Amino acid sequence: MVRTGIATVCLSGTLEDKLAAAAQAGFDGVEVFEPDLIGSPLSPSEIRILAAELGLSIDLYQPFRDFESVPNDQLERNLRRAEAKFDVVEALGAETMLVCSNVSDDAIDDDGLAAQQLHALADRAAERGVRIAYEALAWGRHVSQYDHAWRIVQAVDHPALGICLDSFHILSRGTSLAAIADIPADKLFFVQLADAPHLVMDVLQWSRHYRSFPGQGGFDLADFTARVLDAGYAGPLSLEVFNDVFRQADPRRMAIDAMRSLLTLQESLQAGRSRHLPPPASLHGYAFVELAVEPSSVGETQRLMHAMGFVQAAQHRSKPVALWQHRGVRMLLNAGAPGAPGIAAIAVESADADRSAERAQALLAPVLSRQRSPGEADLSAIAAPDGTSVFFCRTDTGSDTRGWLQDFDPLAPIGRSASTGLIRIDHVALAQPFDYFDEAALFYRSLLGLEPRESLELAAPDGLVRSRAVSAPNGSVRLVLTVPVLAHDAAQPAGLQHVAIACGDIFLVAQRMRERGVGPLSIPDNYYDDLAARLDLEPDLIEVMREHYVLYDRTPGGEFLHFYTPIVGDRLFFEVVERRGDYDGYGAANAPIRMTAQRAPAMAKEAAFAQQGARAKPAEREGDGG
Amino acid sequence: MVRTGIATVCLSGTLEDKLAAAAQAGFDGVEVFEPDLIGSPLSPSEIRILAAELGLSIDLYQPFRDFESVPNDQLERNLRRAEAKFDVVEALGAETMLVCSNVSDDAIDDDGLAAQQLHALADRAAERGVRIAYEALAWGRHVSQYDHAWRIVQAVDHPALGICLDSFHILSRGTSLAAIADIPADKLFFVQLADAPHLVMDVLQWSRHYRSFPGQGGFDLADFTARVLDAGYAGPLSLEVFNDVFRQADPRRMAIDAMRSLLTLQESLQAGRSRHLPPPASLHGYAFVELAVEPSSVGETQRLMHAMGFVQAAQHRSKPVALWQHRGVRMLLNAGAPGAPGIAAIAVESADADRSAERAQALLAPVLSRQRSPGEADLSAIAAPDGTSVFFCRTDTGSDTRGWLQDFDPLAPIGRSASTGLIRIDHVALAQPFDYFDEAALFYRSLLGLEPRESLELAAPDGLVRSRAVSAPNGSVRLVLTVPVLAHDAAQPAGLQHVAIACGDIFLVAQRMRERGVGPLSIPDNYYDDLAARLDLEPDLIEVMREHYVLYDRTPGGEFLHFYTPIVGDRLFFEVVERRGDYDGYGAANAPIRMTAQRAPAMAKEAAFAQQGARAKPAEREGDGG
Repeated sequence: MVRTGIATVCLSGTLEDKLAAAAQAGFDGVEVFEPDLIGSPLSPSEIRILAAELGLSIDLYQPFRDFESVPNDQLERNLRRAEAKFDVVEALGAETMLVCSNVSDDAIDDDGLAAQQLHALADRAAERGVRIAYEALAWGRHVSQYDHAWRIVQAVDHPALGICLDSFHILSRGTSLAAIADIPADKLFFVQLADAPHLVMDVLQWSRHYRSFPGQGGFDLADFTARVLDAGYAGPLSLEVFNDVFRQADPRRMAIDAMRSLLTLQESLQAGRSRHLPPPASLHGYAFVELAVEPSSVGETQRLMHAMGFVQAAQHRSKPVALWQHRGVRMLLNAGAPGAPGIAAIAVESADADRSAERAQALLAPVLSRQRSPGEADLSAIAAPDGTSVFFCRTDTGSDTRGWLQDFDPLAPIGRSASTGLIRIDHVALAQPFDYFDEAALFYRSLLGLEPRESLELAAPDGLVRSRAVSAPNGSVRLVLTVPVLAHDAAQPAGLQHVAIACGDIFLVAQRMRERGVGPLSIPDNYYDDLAARLDLEPDLIEVMREHYVLYDRTPGGEFLHFYTPIVGDRLFFEVVERRGDYDGYGAANAPIRMTAQRAPAMAKEAAFAQQGARAKPAEREGDGG
Repeated sequence: MVRTGIATVCLSGTLEDKLAAAAQAGFDGVEVFEPDLIGSPLSPSEIRILAAELGLSIDLYQPFRDFESVPNDQLERNLRRAEAKFDVVEALGAETMLVCSNVSDDAIDDDGLAAQQLHALADRAAERGVRIAYEALAWGRHVSQYDHAWRIVQAVDHPALGICLDSFHILSRGTSLAAIADIPADKLFFVQLADAPHLVMDVLQWSRHYRSFPGQGGFDLADFTARVLDAGYAGPLSLEVFNDVFRQADPRRMAIDAMRSLLTLQESLQAGRSRHLPPPASLHGYAFVELAVEPSSVGETQRLMHAMGFVQAAQHRSKPVALWQHRGVRMLLNAGAPGAPGIAAIAVESADADRSAERAQALLAPVLSRQRSPGEADLSAIAAPDGTSVFFCRTDTGSDTRGWLQDFDPLAPIGRSASTGLIRIDHVALAQPFDYFDEAALFYRSLLGLEPRESLELAAPDGLVRSRAVSAPNGSVRLVLTVPVLAHDAAQPAGLQHVAIACGDIFLVAQRMRERGVGPLSIPDNYYDDLAARLDLEPDLIEVMREHYVLYDRTPGGEFLHFYTPIVGDRLFFEVVERRGDYDGYGAANAPIRMTAQRAPAMAKEAAFAQQGARAKPAEREGDGG
């Protein structure tokens, strides 16, 4: 009888959810997909025990990438990386690790070199009782066909090295199956099955499903349009966009979105051709972020704000809105906002708030009518596509009598509060409605004069999430917009939102917060073990990050250290970030870990709020050593 | 000032919705996309008037396809087709019609021929005061670059022929924009703008987003797996599937779906390798379809059943279920079903109902426990992924004491009811939940032993709909499964479902139904005008179809005539179909027309139920003649 297995990546949820589901459906075993392990609070040996209790064997650990065909100085690093993963394989009780053919542009086209390096890997694996299953990815740099991979495995001729056949990689390329018969049974280490529709992923499909309005994609339409007008074209600039999402969205909204895209495009053309559009005013950071808080979570939110070092500094004269402040970082807590809880408003510091508002109106943004008592500031506010209010203001007004801070009555100082070292609002992350993501990105960009960053897809435990950042040229205002890659057909809870606050010393902030009774969001040990395997970081740095649940990312020019607070209410949390060097991103690589950790049981949240936020030492960390 | 325009295809809803939205957003004009016109109950001249009232010009009618570079015998047909469309352009007051470069495999690679034929078209257009804007589609058979199209237009040198530049078709191919400057302004007839993300639509994306479980895609995995096992592989057959939908679905359901796919795959392998799976029993059509009807729509449903020629023949002994019958076609009306209204159950005639049920259980289908009074038939029922109950039964039991009909007490005959000529249930169309469409297709196929047909995408006014048919080899049982291509992020109303009933004379059924007070779903005149332009059908046939709202499709070997009833309750309707020759499809090409017609205002539905179902003659049909 053939045994059955399933890779954990096929199923949604946490690793525990996945294992339980596989066992219940009667599978004999599983492949553990590395990101599922890294996101899990269970250690590899705990996972082994859980799987055994469920009657599941762990048949494969996967994937190990970009190992072979590298320059020799990189080989040693790759072997060290492999050794760290053998620890995991051993602790999982998995026996076999999948190695995918190298996809890096730096890979060397030399089967002899590949064989030599895989031999070295097989030697190390054999010492650890691990088998290596080598698989040709259909998009491998030099090895992309299974028969090619097999020739290399033959050349290596090592008992610990065999082959993995994945039906997708073979059938998607239409490779002949005849060579399968030539592979001895004892070299067929693993077989993965996947079907797939015969997709014609060509320009026709691209055209029919993925067009967008100007400014929402990647084409240089300003150049195109300028050339057409230079040639004397006098007809209409007419939008023709086939887009699966637009087809199902409210046509009135989409038509306004479409017109906004044309207005923005025309602005980028030479003067005289565009309708009058007031240019964007320069921005100087966030004046404040307003949080709508449900009565039931006011206390929780206040405790978190306090732990972060904020103090309640003032109360609005006529509204149930409190101003919480830490140095120049200002947050409004609104206990009486009519809309959904979460981030109700963002306010940017504009060099010319009136012009910002005029621009917004010219770009068809809905202007919000606001209840205002006599003498209160007449703040210009518009409604963003996601329902967030956007204010333009100048906090440092000098002689300007309309400063928004004057609407607040200062409270008597409640004693000196030690600084935690927060500096400013770094970015605001807003979950967007599925049908209006492109609209939202264009809206914020064109109204605020922000620049787009690339769109990323992140694997959350409940599905893929798309993320797109937009930021001011000087980095003073940054927004991160997120949306599920696919909607469900049932109503879903509103997505998480967060405010990220920049600091100069992430570990100091983490320490101060813990002293004030709020620990950060727990990050699994597996994350730090993987970090140590991947990057040449000081072990001491990794240990202090592990202690404070601080995550890490880096680029050639800089580093990014960050941690998250627990969630307050249903959907709001904070992030504290430290940017080092010229790091300009948002730690997107760590977002899946964060999203998985946020699915941890409610108990963990309670624990984080416990008076003693000190972290318990992990009970057991098998697989760490050797 | 540059004028602005938008193609109606960019926006969702009916053509009226689209025009209103474009006007409200301040666009100067629109391009009318042909399918939007064909689905509209407004005549072209009514559309012109509506647009004018809204302050919109109609700048373009599009697209006209596959005209040029054809054999000369086809040219005459194409010119006749064009003349019919000039009628539309003229009635719309549009001036310009878009002609896309030919994409047909039969197109001849001869610029001289293309120029000669486009010259003939331009002559005819000029006589009608119409301009032709020729556009190179990025996937045109021989003309796929704008500069190539321009060379042909130059060669034609006709005042009624110019060029249309579409930014997508140019920028998606990376064509140099330098040649735009060479085109004289009076030859730049139209410019369409679209942006698009830089998609890498390669095997990597295919792999990461669109894999599926065996049997849900198009790969021949039985062959692959047999070869692997023949080679002596003894490890697990392990599924490794990256799929955006599966990632967000309930992992327990997906794991069972995954296991079902492996069981079905193993069945297709040589004997001895598979677990025991009872083979599917042969099926002989539908025993019945059970409709769950809300109390408020019982009367409406009964009136419709009556009009179709059904009579209430029996009543269930213990349940509020009535048997309605027309010859051998049986429908159950259940006024007390606990679930959502719609199709509650389908029952298939199985040659071996017990074996069918055993097979379903072996394939992990949930078996339904049913309330049964003593002496009532012990029908085997399972729950399909969409919640529909599936029964296996034998109506013609002979000596079998368990026949389900014996649970019904026959009613006294209520007088002879004239036959409307319905023959049998042709197919049942079931809307599926978004996250479980692949699961459902595999479920029905593997349990009932049905064969899959290709997956189609249909443009409904509220978004794209995917449709997949599965049918028994002998055609006795046909199912059509539908699902939105994208879900919304808000809860949507359950999709429409319908039962299609086959007849021998579609016009007789339509006539009888009308006599009994229920007219069919109204189909726009534009549909029949387009049919006349597209196909060489007898004008008399088109007129009788127009009168009875009968739709038409054909393949080389057969024809399909069908009409739809109004919707009863929230989501149920009937279709009456006549298959001629060996037509084996479902009229999918007409589904967008149907879905648009079903969005017509509620008034239309009331009118359809009016005692006199006779059709009002269209008030005006400008654009028909010439």
